[in-house]
Amino acid sequence: MNLNERSLKVVEELLARAEERKVALHPIEGGGRFIDCGLDVPGGLQAGLDLARVCLANLAEVTIVPGDVAGRACPVVQVVTDHPVRACLASQYAGWAISEEKFFAMGSGPMRAAKGDEPIFAKINAGESAKAVVGVLETRKKPTPAVVAKIAAACRVAPTDLTLLVAPTASIAGGVQIVARSVETALHKLAELGFDMSRIESACGSAPLPPVAANDLAAIGRTNDAILYGARVVLYVRGDDASLEAIGAKVPSSASHDHGEPFAVIFAKYHNDFYAVDPHLFSPAEVVFQNLETGRVHVFGQVATDVMVRSFFS
Amino acid sequence: MNLNERSLKVVEELLARAEERKVALHPIEGGGRFIDCGLDVPGGLQAGLDLARVCLANLAEVTIVPGDVAGRACPVVQVVTDHPVRACLASQYAGWAISEEKFFAMGSGPMRAAKGDEPIFAKINAGESAKAVVGVLETRKKPTPAVVAKIAAACRVAPTDLTLLVAPTASIAGGVQIVARSVETALHKLAELGFDMSRIESACGSAPLPPVAANDLAAIGRTNDAILYGARVVLYVRGDDASLEAIGAKVPSSASHDHGEPFAVIFAKYHNDFYAVDPHLFSPAEVVFQNLETGRVHVFGQVATDVMVRSFFS
Amino acid sequence: MNLNERSLKVVEELLARAEERKVALHPIEGGGRFIDCGLDVPGGLQAGLDLARVCLANLAEVTIVPGDVAGRACPVVQVVTDHPVRACLASQYAGWAISEEKFFAMGSGPMRAAKGDEPIFAKINAGESAKAVVGVLETRKKPTPAVVAKIAAACRVAPTDLTLLVAPTASIAGGVQIVARSVETALHKLAELGFDMSRIESACGSAPLPPVAANDLAAIGRTNDAILYGARVVLYVRGDDASLEAIGAKVPSSASHDHGEPFAVIFAKYHNDFYAVDPHLFSPAEVVFQNLETGRVHVFGQVATDVMVRSFFS
Repeated sequence: MNLNERSLKVVEELLARAEERKVALHPIEGGGRFIDCGLDVPGGLQAGLDLARVCLANLAEVTIVPGDVAGRACPVVQVVTDHPVRACLASQYAGWAISEEKFFAMGSGPMRAAKGDEPIFAKINAGESAKAVVGVLETRKKPTPAVVAKIAAACRVAPTDLTLLVAPTASIAGGVQIVARSVETALHKLAELGFDMSRIESACGSAPLPPVAANDLAAIGRTNDAILYGARVVLYVRGDDASLEAIGAKVPSSASHDHGEPFAVIFAKYHNDFYAVDPHLFSPAEVVFQNLETGRVHVFGQVATDVMVRSFFS
Repeated sequence: MNLNERSLKVVEELLARAEERKVALHPIEGGGRFIDCGLDVPGGLQAGLDLARVCLANLAEVTIVPGDVAGRACPVVQVVTDHPVRACLASQYAGWAISEEKFFAMGSGPMRAAKGDEPIFAKINAGESAKAVVGVLETRKKPTPAVVAKIAAACRVAPTDLTLLVAPTASIAGGVQIVARSVETALHKLAELGFDMSRIESACGSAPLPPVAANDLAAIGRTNDAILYGARVVLYVRGDDASLEAIGAKVPSSASHDHGEPFAVIFAKYHNDFYAVDPHLFSPAEVVFQNLETGRVHVFGQVATDVMVRSFFS
Repeated sequence: MNLNERSLKVVEELLARAEERKVALHPIEGGGRFIDCGLDVPGGLQAGLDLARVCLANLAEVTIVPGDVAGRACPVVQVVTDHPVRACLASQYAGWAISEEKFFAMGSGPMRAAKGDEPIFAKINAGESAKAVVGVLETRKKPTPAVVAKIAAACRVAPTDLTLLVAPTASIAGGVQIVARSVETALHKLAELGFDMSRIESACGSAPLPPVAANDLAAIGRTNDAILYGARVVLYVRGDDASLEAIGAKVPSSASHDHGEPFAVIFAKYHNDFYAVDPHLFSPAEVVFQNLETGRVHVFGQVATDVMVRSFFS
């Protein structure tokens, strides 16, 4: 159950069908390699699903099903996992801000578990050592040797043992891997609220795949809106109901005072300063807790189709 | 097309990923083995899908898709099969009541075809001999050597050639394998009504996955309600339309005078005596017959969301 | 990425489970072979999915999900592809009318790319040479040695290197493979309208699986209606928006003056003369263009449930 080993298997399968997936492998000077999933190549829906699986250490099923947003056909990305905490928080969460000269990307995937020193790992005890390490970067820039060296060092591997997969926010594959984060955003919010993550056993989530935007800033808006206003998550949890009732109402995006506008509007209001946005905004539209011990179900939040319409179709 | 061989392949794949599926293999004293899918281990959604595939002799595709019950997110379990009678009646139907001292479980899976002497086999001609036998038990008790000996003898194999998979009703995997019985319940009802089962060619079914209940009795209620009030089945059949019209109205659960209340309420009314409940109640909410010969479609029954709301969310 | 090689792999997997798929392999006198998917054998839903994958050169995911038509359960066939033009136009489009003495069938599948001389190949540059060739025939007649000889010659292979898969329109597998043409019909219409096909990057489509009709003529009606009135397609395209706005309104079936009646009614009106029907009718009910460059979304047409009800259920 080594997360990096699991993701590496998905990577090798992806590379075996690189042409079909419309991705391209590039060696990096000085060691390591990166897989372009949407920079100089088109990538696509299947590459996005594979990217999501890599992010999730292949501990979740990720599928596309038909969907509808206010009468317009719009595919939906579904995630089903029996290892939500390890898959989503130890691996998928984009918790590693990687900045180098002229390079910035949010990093996700199992390389985070190999680094293992983000605050969240204190809560979930899911760090690991790995011989070869895999990471996913949401960026429009190609990783440089300096980026590789930095990541490899943090993960205690040689640069030659690092594989990075890259897709920009405004790309098909990038969009798929982001909206495959319905469960992850619920879990991250819960961790922030101090919930005991060991109570969470399994999870299902879905979110509409928003249209790719004209640029990465606009794409950040739409992909966030797909989660904030369109994601529906079911969590299978243990323990008492009182704590679920107490914390539950704070979990969906509607618990935030910033809720209600397309993310691009909110972001502009704060002059595009991410850290000025209420951090409680970042969670699914609807979160359902099913208590495995008491049989009680607690439903919080709901889909806001009107905001998605403003975000996706205008 | 040996049913036990087919299920054994699924079992071996499940065991190869036991940790990922959160199941545990146990040898049984005196021979045989059982796979715990939800007693002392958590099991999960994927273990439940595998359990359903084992029940169905892997002659059906079983998948989870996103769903909704009265505005609450609720996953749906879909079954698609081109061998509905063999998969569902010769294997999946829980037609074997296994009782030993301090042990009781409803048994399903291809071991039933190896035993082959249930009355239903007279109607479907699908018994088989098998070198190794696989069964699924819905119970909270671990199978004892006496249980294994009894089953093995009935199936004409040595205890060492028996694999049992176990999940309680009130568990994630147990719930998935039960609501994967949408098609099965339609077929069993039809068999009881004397329908010629050789007329049935293929089938699709779906049912919402109800929240796991606090105990097995309550879980029996919810899983039944998912079928009785939530399952939708399409049967691809041959033959005349008159017989479909004559029998069809008797097939959905609404044909029963007990229809309309959550199963737990009905069950309590009959003092928890299963055999006092109208046997005609046990079938899907909606059954659609598509006649492959005449092109006519006959629709009977419909989903009763209000009863599911009472059962799942109160 | 040889289309015929890709389809041949699906064929071999299908043949390895011929009994399970309820299909039958037949050698053809003089060389070649055909796989009966619904003539003298029942075939089924899974055989239909495999048939669709063969048609699409396995460059698309094809799945069944639960669906609903006016309150009646009705499965939906979904197609997801990152190679829509090659999968759908170079391979899946039924563009080869094969007629021999006492034999007529519309031919599709990658054999068309090996033949490579249909006018559409001038627009898409996707012809290929192949050592072994695979085709799909929608017909109720078995391919004769003369048919095989003709196809093999056109594809420049020996008859022994030809595999044909056959399913009639009025069969389960035939129906699945036809309604897996949601994306294809959108693309073919666009090609006819002179759209630059290289602008199309990826696509998702879905359409209800109509009930099998009593005969092939009626089945042509229902399968057409599933597309014309039930198919929803999302196209991921590049380029300018003005051209999408200009051409888009002509793409859905509602752009045709023949739109609005069940296809069987339209067909009868034209005395069953296919070529008298407005060719602009043949396209999905709804076509959504997502512009990958500008982020704009253009929605044309919509599902017409009432016409499907008339077609499927009366």
